[in-house]
Amino acid sequence: MATTTSPQTHLLPQTNNPFLKKPITTFTSQISLRTNPTFKPISIKCTATTQAQPQAQPQTQSHSSDRVFNFAAGPATLPENVLRKAQSELYNWRGSGMSVMEMSHRGKEFLSIIQKAESDLRTLLEISSEYSVLFLQGGATTQFAAVPLNICKNDDAVDYIVTGSWSDKAFKEGQKYCKPNVIWSGKSEKYTKIPSFDDLKQNPEARFLHICANETIHGVEFKNYPTPNNKNGILIADMSSNFCSKPVDVSKFGLIYAGAQKNVGPSGVTVVIVRNDLIGNAQDLTPVMLDYKIHAENNSLYNTPPCYGIYMCGLVFEDLLEQGGLVEVEKKNKKKAEILYNAIDESNGFFKCPVEKSVRSLMNVPFTLEKSELEGDFIKEAAKENMVQLKGHRSVGGMRASIYNAMPLAGVEKLVAFMKDFQAKHA
Amino acid sequence: MATTTSPQTHLLPQTNNPFLKKPITTFTSQISLRTNPTFKPISIKCTATTQAQPQAQPQTQSHSSDRVFNFAAGPATLPENVLRKAQSELYNWRGSGMSVMEMSHRGKEFLSIIQKAESDLRTLLEISSEYSVLFLQGGATTQFAAVPLNICKNDDAVDYIVTGSWSDKAFKEGQKYCKPNVIWSGKSEKYTKIPSFDDLKQNPEARFLHICANETIHGVEFKNYPTPNNKNGILIADMSSNFCSKPVDVSKFGLIYAGAQKNVGPSGVTVVIVRNDLIGNAQDLTPVMLDYKIHAENNSLYNTPPCYGIYMCGLVFEDLLEQGGLVEVEKKNKKKAEILYNAIDESNGFFKCPVEKSVRSLMNVPFTLEKSELEGDFIKEAAKENMVQLKGHRSVGGMRASIYNAMPLAGVEKLVAFMKDFQAKHA
Repeated sequence: MATTTSPQTHLLPQTNNPFLKKPITTFTSQISLRTNPTFKPISIKCTATTQAQPQAQPQTQSHSSDRVFNFAAGPATLPENVLRKAQSELYNWRGSGMSVMEMSHRGKEFLSIIQKAESDLRTLLEISSEYSVLFLQGGATTQFAAVPLNICKNDDAVDYIVTGSWSDKAFKEGQKYCKPNVIWSGKSEKYTKIPSFDDLKQNPEARFLHICANETIHGVEFKNYPTPNNKNGILIADMSSNFCSKPVDVSKFGLIYAGAQKNVGPSGVTVVIVRNDLIGNAQDLTPVMLDYKIHAENNSLYNTPPCYGIYMCGLVFEDLLEQGGLVEVEKKNKKKAEILYNAIDESNGFFKCPVEKSVRSLMNVPFTLEKSELEGDFIKEAAKENMVQLKGHRSVGGMRASIYNAMPLAGVEKLVAFMKDFQAKHA
Repeated sequence: MATTTSPQTHLLPQTNNPFLKKPITTFTSQISLRTNPTFKPISIKCTATTQAQPQAQPQTQSHSSDRVFNFAAGPATLPENVLRKAQSELYNWRGSGMSVMEMSHRGKEFLSIIQKAESDLRTLLEISSEYSVLFLQGGATTQFAAVPLNICKNDDAVDYIVTGSWSDKAFKEGQKYCKPNVIWSGKSEKYTKIPSFDDLKQNPEARFLHICANETIHGVEFKNYPTPNNKNGILIADMSSNFCSKPVDVSKFGLIYAGAQKNVGPSGVTVVIVRNDLIGNAQDLTPVMLDYKIHAENNSLYNTPPCYGIYMCGLVFEDLLEQGGLVEVEKKNKKKAEILYNAIDESNGFFKCPVEKSVRSLMNVPFTLEKSELEGDFIKEAAKENMVQLKGHRSVGGMRASIYNAMPLAGVEKLVAFMKDFQAKHA
């Protein structure tokens, strides 16, 4: 799955995208290491109307002293060099005389931005031309309705695996638009597990199988994916909180959706990757803004998209490519998670993580204190040392450290050192 | 309707908003010139976690030489001082060690931002506590569905006045969720008129009367509003393209909605102002994200809102208050529109505006050239002089100058001077 691209060079699969019929961008060299036969890369570059300003040097996971380490579950920390670049371009994007926030979404400047964002995301995840990539609004919660409205009829059976709060919410919203059935729930074990796939009792008549790939609140993550044995073979995943944190074989999915505000941008952008043959059968009562066909036909420009958020996602995608793609990103994420989980496991029970070891999230690390009365102090003292947003979700309590792509290793190391100090003081 | 506030002082009506029960912001002085008995102002200030950076001086409608004059219909030009302030704060918001894009939407920093944005908007439009103010996603197009889904049953009759493309789209989407009836259409006259209210044949059984207060594409604007004589007395308006461009008596409306990307911010934020008694009766099939009750009960924080866009809207609201409120803003808008329409009308037919004079929009000025073969040259030559996005909407052709709040008078003066030169060359 490794992709190697030089900075400034990005790949785009061939699609029926009208952007590509009338390219307004500059096409440069071609690089491809991929094997997917439907993935025929061309490269695309984001162009300015007049002169380009010098680009910021990539400063991978740098951290300035005036920054806090922000462990929030989302919106979440963004790469420092991406923020610096956004700041330098905010007032006047690359000599255009405008902020990205002011650009007509149909003007050549913004078209080049959204094209390049799509192109870079396709490169990162090796998304073939059999899939449409949509930049939408409304978060995963909107997709909880849009998915059944688009993919099934209202009397279709659908299988949901419920591994935490988010898949439960998806199931509940689905009840309005299909006949969903929970084929496995981790609720009785406080959402600390992922089921064994062999034990799943999938309904062969189900229209699709739905999972949440990473539960942000409970910190359980699918390490591989069940094979849907419904007659349509459709697997659908909410990947909001582990999107672009590691390579994923998109071809195994009918549809992937993700709010941007964890790993790839600010809140207000939702990415939907949907296999083209699943588009075009929305239920009659589907609001036009929830109809994938409308957005796919209009390249996410049916109405005014969240332009600035898409621009920010584009900067993050560039940054991920410059880091060497998702294989490299996953290595860093594994390293960070390893030292944090080790610190918990080696604390002789002073810290505890309730999640089964084999399915612990690389992104969201929930933990508790044996002496739970100290949790308030832990969070307060950490904040004094500029480590913020460590409080667990209100529904589960305890602590949670979200360590998304943009959390530097130094942030996790500092947290671990703090945990050891805290334990020494209070053991 | 005039409001006078000193910079830094903003008013908030009393509501059941939990923010106000547990205020985390600093309350300063109180100023109110309003007469609305339900409007009981208190003032609210946006606070930083550590030290505040010096605030940018208001530079009302200034224009730097490296900026273009951007006549786009939306996303559109933003106030230069707002962009400068956003730029200065992008990397590290007021000493918080975070960008606004990175803040948890449930953290004290962002709560102070969204509270202040709501408070300032309530001040600008004198919105009483009988109304909820929601910051949502999905644009007006999402509201075309959300309005009937929330306000009526699916067999309710509803009256729509169709004065252009946008009210027509609202009507068409409404067909999925109610029994809409077009009681007046300007289509046969190419959408150049607003009906005489006396001639309207309103259905007394209609659940509500829907209008588009300003048609962005066709440039027709309601100068006052019809009285709904349906049994419920509900008037609903899409105000996307003239929102906050002038004072509006909100109490005449059951619901007002507006995409932010014309007058008050970047794309990706939709403001809904809805009378509280109309909340809570959504149709069963309403997606949870389109249900006003959910958003009102959660102060727009049911799921992750478009945080950065809301922050930008907040900066614009501050700027409008610093300009003296909407009475002063309207004066500037009238002045700008006057000199542009005069230039058209005094061109001896070289330039033409098709819209009936009494209902010409202060925001969107469509015009054509008698010698239509010159229109391409007009747009191209204007762009050379840094006046961009003057092409008319693809559905109507010709030219369109959108002159929203943030378009400086100097921009319109420059356009008018250019038009006169162009005419002299080509007459």
